[in-house]
Amino acid sequence: MQFFAPPVERLIEEFARLPGIGQKTAQRLAFHVLNQPKEDAERFAEAIMQAKQQIFTCKVCQNLTDSELCPICSNPTRDPGVICVVADPRDVIAFERTREFQGLYHVLHGTISPLNHVGPDDIRIRELLTRVAETDVREVIIATNPDTEGEATAMYISRLLRPFGIRVTRLAYGIPVGGHLEFIDEVTLMRALEGRREI
Amino acid sequence: MQFFAPPVERLIEEFARLPGIGQKTAQRLAFHVLNQPKEDAERFAEAIMQAKQQIFTCKVCQNLTDSELCPICSNPTRDPGVICVVADPRDVIAFERTREFQGLYHVLHGTISPLNHVGPDDIRIRELLTRVAETDVREVIIATNPDTEGEATAMYISRLLRPFGIRVTRLAYGIPVGGHLEFIDEVTLMRALEGRREI
Repeated sequence: MQFFAPPVERLIEEFARLPGIGQKTAQRLAFHVLNQPKEDAERFAEAIMQAKQQIFTCKVCQNLTDSELCPICSNPTRDPGVICVVADPRDVIAFERTREFQGLYHVLHGTISPLNHVGPDDIRIRELLTRVAETDVREVIIATNPDTEGEATAMYISRLLRPFGIRVTRLAYGIPVGGHLEFIDEVTLMRALEGRREI
Repeated sequence: MQFFAPPVERLIEEFARLPGIGQKTAQRLAFHVLNQPKEDAERFAEAIMQAKQQIFTCKVCQNLTDSELCPICSNPTRDPGVICVVADPRDVIAFERTREFQGLYHVLHGTISPLNHVGPDDIRIRELLTRVAETDVREVIIATNPDTEGEATAMYISRLLRPFGIRVTRLAYGIPVGGHLEFIDEVTLMRALEGRREI
């Protein structure tokens, strides 16, 4: 049943397409946009178009960037011998926030997920292999999420990288800093025990 | 600290401006748009612009519409003698869903709210008075929300309408259909008692 004028309905529909946005929230957002001054709505629409037009994936690390080579890949002080493989551009940000990692990244744009029809060819694994084959890489750190799909992707990639004879590592499992032992699940605790270190 | 390319940052910022959308959700939405096919993003941007360009307020009831007179006001089978005053276009939809109300609406686009610096002149009260003065209105039903601001606005409007000598009503308070008495707050229950009717 259509109650709103067609342009309003269309706007609500577009908002409802976004992940995690239901019908009610989509209505709220659409009416917010309708109540905004015209310049604000124009700026919003433009931001969408510009992001789509100006953002590409870096030809080396596949991260989103507005130049051919992303700022990290083109930074001469970074170590190109270490590649941290992540599933999502937001994971790069998470690592950059630590200010600890000095190597480069490789963004897969997804993880292998048969249930969602995402196979190895749908994410940027081939580009990673080319990179490892063509440049002087000492270590690949596989930093996919510690869930089933992340694990499967990590295993898959590590197997593909074995012939190259380089170091392939995975992030350490353990208790998160600031966590309370009583609230930590048994699998994590088991992994934390396994990975214990001398102090 | 900027980690993403400027067009991505701008898009995240625009999403974060929307009500109820925090920084993390804004990132998620922005990356969703970036991962969409270009046509989808274009359609989204266009929906925003078109809604802004094609949607006006109806010159009679102030509801949002894409024509000069909204479909309800231009419907000859509706009774122009009864006006239901609501705060928001979405409230019109709520009433239309009941398929019971045959009169017209008046959308205030807000309620009087001194805390948010919204005074009587910031919402469409003057337009309501003009309507009542110039057309043959028998009854005004004030259907603002049953909260403090909605009540205050209802009281204010009812006082302004008194000189016109027409019937001014307010929605009935009471227990919601399907509600459980044990979960109903005491004010509502008190109002339900006060408003009891013979069966």
